[in-house]
Amino acid sequence: MHVLGIAVISVDGCLARHEESGVSFASAEDQAEFRRAVQECGATVMGRRTFDAVRERILGSKDHSLLRTIVTREPTRYAELAQPGRIEFTSAGPREIVRSLADRGYRSVAILGGAQIYDLFTADALITEWQITVEPRLFGTGTRILSRAADPPLTLVEHRLLNANTLLLRYRVG
Amino acid sequence: MHVLGIAVISVDGCLARHEESGVSFASAEDQAEFRRAVQECGATVMGRRTFDAVRERILGSKDHSLLRTIVTREPTRYAELAQPGRIEFTSAGPREIVRSLADRGYRSVAILGGAQIYDLFTADALITEWQITVEPRLFGTGTRILSRAADPPLTLVEHRLLNANTLLLRYRVG
Repeated sequence: MHVLGIAVISVDGCLARHEESGVSFASAEDQAEFRRAVQECGATVMGRRTFDAVRERILGSKDHSLLRTIVTREPTRYAELAQPGRIEFTSAGPREIVRSLADRGYRSVAILGGAQIYDLFTADALITEWQITVEPRLFGTGTRILSRAADPPLTLVEHRLLNANTLLLRYRVG
Repeated sequence: MHVLGIAVISVDGCLARHEESGVSFASAEDQAEFRRAVQECGATVMGRRTFDAVRERILGSKDHSLLRTIVTREPTRYAELAQPGRIEFTSAGPREIVRSLADRGYRSVAILGGAQIYDLFTADALITEWQITVEPRLFGTGTRILSRAADPPLTLVEHRLLNANTLLLRYRVG
């Protein structure tokens, strides 16, 4: 199973600026690359807060080919939003989620954050590749891409400009 | 005055791994690039803790062309290590340090950290360029390159591989 961690960060590793939430600092080119990468995966996993931040867009999406799995402690609270095969809520752990997706025939999944979700999938050594966009910002404070001690073995497999100031970095884990 | 912030960080913006101190994760290629950039500047500024971490190397250095300014609240404590024009200790603020170096004819200075020093020079908008090496690591925890809220305007002016896995990024501030 190809488990792709996707994130857009500042040069100093922040997912968000200061006390803000959301990735409003992401360039249009990052957003286009994000959509392309997600479509290629066919399945995504995100935390409940990340879902809430983009909720209307997901619920209004006409794209029926993408499975979005939302991790929450209280999946029953979201039961009426669930659409099996498109929008699913689960309290399962990372290993169980990946195993279940594999059993259902998915060959790759994009892990979309936030930090807690990246932490969980990193702790269980499930992420096989990171695709990280680095925007030209230094926030100093803000939610970090990871918050728990880690040190997965990374190999740089690609780096390219998305625009004049924005870099895309891809690392293979292992 | 060209004020160059130089740092080596993990992909998630850490200067050090977990609770460790020092940049033992820096590649040989980064260290070579670091020495080259510092020589080109002719003057450096670092915090007292950074100095203590590389103290023996600095005191034993045969390079008499480089001025190292160490920022400490107690410069008198270090009086016997001082060598005017080579190793100087000061409790002056960032603006005063830069002005003093300019008055003495220095045209560029490298700011070597740690985080507190980067914070101070960033808060006063003194850094005109960042040269940041990104090693292929994700530490999750560790001292961050900046710890205070900031958001200087950055323009990417260069990105290149130092080795197969290590990227050097240069950003102009402004």
